[in-house]
Order: sequence, then structure tokens, then C-alpha cells
Amino acid sequence: MKESIQALRALEKQYYAYYYALAAIEYDESTVAPPESAAGRAVAAEALSEAQFRLLVNPETDALLTTAAADAETEQEKAEVRELRRRYNEICRIPPAEYAAFASLAQQSVTVWGKAKRNNDFAAYAPYLEKLVAGRRAQAGYIAPGRDPYEVWLDQYERGLTIARCDEFFATLRTAIVPLLAAIRQRGRAVRADFLDADWPMEGQRAISQAIMRRWTIDPEHCILGETEHPFTTNFWRGDVRITTHYLPRDMASNLYSVAHEGGHALYELHVDPALDYTILSGGSTMGLHESQSRLFENCVARSREFIGCLWPTLTAQFPTQLAGVTAEEFYRAVNRAEPGLIRTEADELTYSLHIMVRYELEKALLQGTLAVRDLPAAWNEKYQEYLGITVPDDTHGVLQDIHWAMGDMGYFPSYALGSAYAAQAVADIGKKLPLATLFASGELTPLVKELKTRLWQYGCKKEPAWLVENLCGGAFDPQYYIKYLTDKYTDIYGL
Amino acid sequence: MKESIQALRALEKQYYAYYYALAAIEYDESTVAPPESAAGRAVAAEALSEAQFRLLVNPETDALLTTAAADAETEQEKAEVRELRRRYNEICRIPPAEYAAFASLAQQSVTVWGKAKRNNDFAAYAPYLEKLVAGRRAQAGYIAPGRDPYEVWLDQYERGLTIARCDEFFATLRTAIVPLLAAIRQRGRAVRADFLDADWPMEGQRAISQAIMRRWTIDPEHCILGETEHPFTTNFWRGDVRITTHYLPRDMASNLYSVAHEGGHALYELHVDPALDYTILSGGSTMGLHESQSRLFENCVARSREFIGCLWPTLTAQFPTQLAGVTAEEFYRAVNRAEPGLIRTEADELTYSLHIMVRYELEKALLQGTLAVRDLPAAWNEKYQEYLGITVPDDTHGVLQDIHWAMGDMGYFPSYALGSAYAAQAVADIGKKLPLATLFASGELTPLVKELKTRLWQYGCKKEPAWLVENLCGGAFDPQYYIKYLTDKYTDIYGL
Repeated sequence: MKESIQALRALEKQYYAYYYALAAIEYDESTVAPPESAAGRAVAAEALSEAQFRLLVNPETDALLTTAAADAETEQEKAEVRELRRRYNEICRIPPAEYAAFASLAQQSVTVWGKAKRNNDFAAYAPYLEKLVAGRRAQAGYIAPGRDPYEVWLDQYERGLTIARCDEFFATLRTAIVPLLAAIRQRGRAVRADFLDADWPMEGQRAISQAIMRRWTIDPEHCILGETEHPFTTNFWRGDVRITTHYLPRDMASNLYSVAHEGGHALYELHVDPALDYTILSGGSTMGLHESQSRLFENCVARSREFIGCLWPTLTAQFPTQLAGVTAEEFYRAVNRAEPGLIRTEADELTYSLHIMVRYELEKALLQGTLAVRDLPAAWNEKYQEYLGITVPDDTHGVLQDIHWAMGDMGYFPSYALGSAYAAQAVADIGKKLPLATLFASGELTPLVKELKTRLWQYGCKKEPAWLVENLCGGAFDPQYYIKYLTDKYTDIYGL
Repeated sequence: MKESIQALRALEKQYYAYYYALAAIEYDESTVAPPESAAGRAVAAEALSEAQFRLLVNPETDALLTTAAADAETEQEKAEVRELRRRYNEICRIPPAEYAAFASLAQQSVTVWGKAKRNNDFAAYAPYLEKLVAGRRAQAGYIAPGRDPYEVWLDQYERGLTIARCDEFFATLRTAIVPLLAAIRQRGRAVRADFLDADWPMEGQRAISQAIMRRWTIDPEHCILGETEHPFTTNFWRGDVRITTHYLPRDMASNLYSVAHEGGHALYELHVDPALDYTILSGGSTMGLHESQSRLFENCVARSREFIGCLWPTLTAQFPTQLAGVTAEEFYRAVNRAEPGLIRTEADELTYSLHIMVRYELEKALLQGTLAVRDLPAAWNEKYQEYLGITVPDDTHGVLQDIHWAMGDMGYFPSYALGSAYAAQAVADIGKKLPLATLFASGELTPLVKELKTRLWQYGCKKEPAWLVENLCGGAFDPQYYIKYLTDKYTDIYGL
């Protein structure tokens, strides 16, 4: 290995250490930190972020990357240089003072947003959102002068994604989902879900979490399950992945599908090639690819008729009274029922993409400057009426529901819908090779885990996202697989 | 504020950020990290430690400290320069490669020690301990050439402490404690403790923890109680202190006195002057001063007859069957009974110092080169026979019981005994001003908390340790207060 590559590896290890520290601090904050401990944490996190920034963005690193680009021999070395150079170029174009000011603004905005959501007070949050939009527009101008600012950010979250592709993708979904939903509402058979509204003891819910973790083949030596209000996954490093869930006393499905979902994220991180440890290439690729794995396990596996059949003995053993007189088929339909609702995170598989579509169109308009922040709530409510057919009662259950924009994340939402579509296509392609229905019915997921590791997980960020999507899906991305998956599933469930 | 002081403050904030990150990582490791997650954590921690080292030890910091020394105006500014300069001088004298090699050796040694302790296999650990001793001897030579290597390390943990003072201190203790213990064994009345060996439900034990936290006036917004095998205190920053305890189903006193002890440490950290936040002066002073506060609350308060009387209604309400037929006086005597045992951490107030004395004499001999590691177990067993009158059955319950030496901490143990002595003297002096017995009996500790904040806590590391000891104790340190405290207490309990 050339000297420059060795120097780069040392830099990457240091970069990783800052990442690890920030991940540990954030995880601590979300799980156990005392209520009034934020001030000192913010000071530490800011200093560590700054140190990480300075480590990457300086003339020595610039020169090192140039030398290393010429010295890189293996595919991995070339990929390391490529990824670091990309981050370097993107970050170094934003003036450091603006970069820091935006981070600080985003932190304040999250607090203001939280209060605004609790108080249904969009006006209090609007000035912050205006500044966030202006900041992201300015940054897009630095990163790619002359390019559509929204597309710059789409590309940040899902490399290679364009507005044209995104427009087409959502138009395709809309053309299929809106009539399907209308058909369900007009002539779908009744789906019984009354039994889900019951008292679900914690002990039984915890047993279900453990059953899912085991079926997913998640190694408890390297991955633990915690509890937080909002479930999430974070990886400290490949050998230490944390997932969280929440236990709702009146809703057992929420925990079940949270563990199934976060477990998919965890598997991806746990199976990256160890050769990439502590380099810039460790960890999963784009947000869309990550979400494809969580949704694959949550929806394609854990919401399949076959897997619910497999889980049924465990479910009825844990909840004999709650599930008395209920069949596995009824449970399957209940956890898959399609009903337009106000809240994205509670949406079913069919309506979920409509929630995303609303956000996509609105954040695009905000960043392109065709929608003013003051007009956002009205635009939100209008689109919910149009796409989902429901009336938004207040901003708390409307435009204020998600944290993303308050954090400065604009261009992130489409990844959620793309992930679902990648998952459906991957499952269709893997199904040509593996007897998935039989495997889901037996709960033996090892062959699927191996296949996903081969197609996607092992690569971390060594391969470009476009290559990974194609390798995962077994061909060029085509949303028709997702449309077919949804159409077949819901036609069957509702007897259309 | 002069420019150099501003630059120093920025450096201190960065230094704090590394401290915070390492504290958060270590806390996570001790409380929740997955079993097989150590490899990536070690890589991150090492890189962060190195970054912290490089931040302090470099020619720019050296020059800055020199400028700042001339520019410092306020007492705090002068103290910041003094503390940083001291650390700089000490660390910069050790060659960086040796510094890093020692850190790595200590990390490996802890693992080897853990296994050796489990397997009663001192021979497996001996080569590591030999290297640790050699490393500490070499480092002492760098820090203070020509000075006794053990004294160099004593001074590191308890600034200003000398071997002469330490020898005198332990000789004084020994002269008083050994005959007192003999008298108890020969003619002390029987102390009933049978009732402590019972089933103590978790719920009741948790209620006791909360009762102690409240009585100690610990603010739950800034300090949380966790669970670990070995209780400890760590402070992330002044506004975020974590303490842990353990719940033993057959031993309720262990949790009670763990919370009382760690709560004392926590109070110290929580009450440092906020003006010192994020500077090198934040946090408590020496180990001995810190231990004085934990032992003051554990022993002088929570093991007092008066406080046990105050806690008695809560104890009997939580454990009505376990404590049926037991009086508060019997409970008081039971949790104070003196019995020589094998294990330091389980020792009572009276025999505790003897355990420390064994370690003091042995680590001094190791560092002075008058005792070889291979002869250590025999020397250990001999001293336990001599001072405590007990036969050590194996190294697991003997020389391998403590982690300190494996971590490279040699010169640290005396602080434990000094802390107890500081505490006894402080209580004697504060008792001239406050009606402590009445306050303990009512459980109203606010006046004591205020007094300790005034005498010690507020100062953090702004004042030199010697000044702090005197201010805490209300005069020059004198171990006779501790001797009197122990003599009075045990003469009374055992009716001597």
C-alpha cells in the first residue's frame, strides 16, 4: 500500500472516531440522558463536529487526496479516494461560517418546531423554516452553481436522482395507487381490525420483539434493542448496531413492525464487509437503499401472509385472550388494511407513498422558490384533501408533524418511497431464485439474508449507489414491480 | 479578557469535548453496549485520546501557555493557566510513543486481569503487571527525574502527598485500628445481622434508592441513576452527572450504601461553580477530596444512628416482613458491624483502611523495585494475615480482586483512606456550626449541602488541593479526627 493511502487510512480512522463519538452522544441523548443536560452536550457536539470538519477540509487533506488519487491501486482504495474527494468538494465549497451557522440554526429550529407542534403554532416556527429554506438554497448554489437547488439536495440524499426521474416515479405511483385506493373504498370487502384495539401486556410484546430479532438472524452479541419514543437504528460501527422500539399498551402492531423495520436497517449495517471497517466506506449506502432493506423486512417479510402464519403460534401463545377467535388470515388483513390517515408514520403500505408525494411536491416548491413558507400550511392541507381525501384539522396533525424540515433535511422524503419500490423489485427478482413463500412460512430467513448480503450489504459505500440499486434489484430500476406488488396484495386482501 | 486567554478558553472547550466524548463512550460501554462491541470502540477511543493529547502537547500550545501566563488577570484565569501548564509539563515529558504504548498495554491488561481473576490464574497476569510496573517507573523518571517513583505517582493522584506523610498517616491508623479491632473481637457485645440475609424485592430497593436521592437533594433533571455490576459516578459536565448502583436480591444494604456513596460524588460535581464550565477547572479536585465527599455521605450521614432513625419508617414500609421484629438500633449496628474480610469493597468502615494499607505497602514496594511481581501474591497473603488476621484462600479473593493495578493505577489506593479521614475531620468541624445530629435525624440535609458547597464543591479545580483540604476540614489535616470518629463509634456499638 502506497504511503499516501496509508495516510488516508489514518485520516479515515480519525474521521470515524468523531463519527463514533457523535453517534454515542446522540444515542445517549435519545435513550438515557437526564432531562436538563442539553447545554453541555451541545457544546461538546459542536466542538467535535468542528474538529471533524477541520480534519477533512484543509489544504493538506486536499493535497493528500490528489496524491492518493494517483496512488490508489485496489478498488477499495479508489473508492475511498472517490468518497472522500466528493465530501471534500461538497463541504469545502460552503463557507465555514455559513456551514456552522446553518448547523446552529437547525439545532434551534428543532426545539422551536417541537414547541410549535405541541402548541399548533406554525407562525412561531415559520421564521425558522424560512431561514432554513434560504440556507439550503444558498448551499445548493455553492455545491452546484446553476443547478436546480432542489435537485442538488435530491442528489445529496440519493446520489444520481433527478427531479425528472422523481416526477415520473411519483406520477407512476399516483396513477396506480389513487384508483386502487378508490376501488378499495368503493367495493373492497370489510377488513376486521377491532381486535387490535386491546390491552397488550408488555411481557408478551417483549417476547414478540425477541422472536423477530431471532428470525431476522440478528446477532445479540453485536446488536441490542432499546426503548425510545420514536424507534430508530444507529450504528456505532459494523460490530455495534443499536435499534430501538416503543411499546404501546393498546397497539401491539406498532412494536412488532418497528422491530421488523429497524431490524432490516440493522442487518444491512451488521453485514458490511469488515475490510471497510473504520474507512469512509463503512456503513450502508444511500438513504433510499437503507430504507429499501428496512421496508423489505417490515413489509415484504413481516406483513406477508406466509410470515404471519409462521409467527401465529408465538402470537397466540403470548396473547391467548386478545387473539381468541381471531384467525391468522384476519390478523394478516388487519395489519395490512389500507386507510387514508393524517399521519405519515402511521400510514399503511398503500397510502404511505401519497404522504411522501405531498412532501415531495411541497419541499420542491419551497426550494425552487415557487412556494412561500407562509403559504405552506394551506398548500399542505389542499394536497391531503386531493391525494388522500382527508381534511387536516390542525397544523399539529398536518404540516408540523415531521421533524425533517426543522433539521434542514429537504430532499430526503423521496428516499422513503424509492426504498419501498427498490424492495418490491428486489423481492420479485430474488423470488426467481429462492422459494420465498416457503421460507417466510417456515421463518427460515437465512437464505434471504445471504442473498441480500451478496447483492447489497457487503459493499457498504464501496460501489456507487446506481450500481448497488441495479445489483439489488437484478436489473434497471422499474417502479412497475412496486405497482404490481401493491396491486396484487391489495386486490387479494380486499377481494377486488 | 486578553486574546491569549480567549484562545486558551477555546482550547479548553475543545479539550472538554474530547473528555465528554470519552466519558459518554465509557458510560455506554459500562451500561448498555452489546457484548462483542469492544473492537470498534477501542479504535475510536484511542483516536480521540490521541487527538486530545495532540491538542495539548504541541509547540503552539506551549507558546500560548507562556503568553497566557503573563496575560492572566483574574484568579480563575491564573488557575486555568496553572492547571494546563502542569498537565502540559507532565505529559510532554513522556515520549508520545511510550505514552500510547502504555495506554494500549493497560487496555490489554484489564482484559487479561479479568480472565486471570475468573480463573484464579495470577501467572497469566504477571507478565502484564511486570510491564505496567516497569512503565510507571519509567514514566515517573520522565516526570520527575531522581524522585522516588512511587512518590511521583502519589503526587499525581493526591497533589502534594509524600511517602513520609503517607507512612505516618497509615502508622497512625494502624496504631489505633488494630487494637480497636482486637478489642471488638475479644470483648465486643454481639451484633445481630441475621435479618440482613433475606429476600429484598427490587421494587422496595428501588424505592430506597429514590428516597436517598431525594434526601441528598440530588436534582433528577441533572442526575440519573443507572444499573451496573459495579456502581460508579461519572460526570459528563456539571449539568449531567450519572451515578449507578446494583441491586442484589439478598443484600439490600449494598444498594442503599452504593447510592449514598455515589450520591456524594454526584453532589460534588453538580455544585461546581458554573463559571468553570467547559474549562480545565470544571469537575472535582483530587481523588482523595472526591472520596471524602462520597464517604462523608455514605458513612458519616447514611451510617449514622440519626439518619437510620430518619429512614426507618421508609425501610419498614418497604420491607415490613423482612424487618419485622427488628429495631432501628439493631439495623444501625448491623450495617456498621466490624468484621475482617477478604474483599476491600465489602469492608466495613473500621477494617477498610487496613485493606488500603496492604495495597499501599505493596504498590510502594513494587514501584520502588523492592518487591518483584512474582513475589506479590505471597506478600499479599502475608499482610492480610498480619493486619486483618485472615487467611487468603486464593488469588481471586486476594491479589487479583481489584482492577486498579491492571489499569495502571498505582499510587491511587491511599486516596481512599485519606478521603475517609478528611470526611471525619470535616464533619467534626461542620458540627461546631450546624446541629448535624438533629439534621440527620430529620433528614433535612440542605444546610450540610450548602456548607460543603461553600467549603469545597464550588471551587472545582480553581484552588490547589492543599488549600481545599484545609478549607474543607476547617484547619490543617489531622488524622486524629478520624481515629476519634472510629473509636467513639465502635466503642459505642460494641459496648467496649
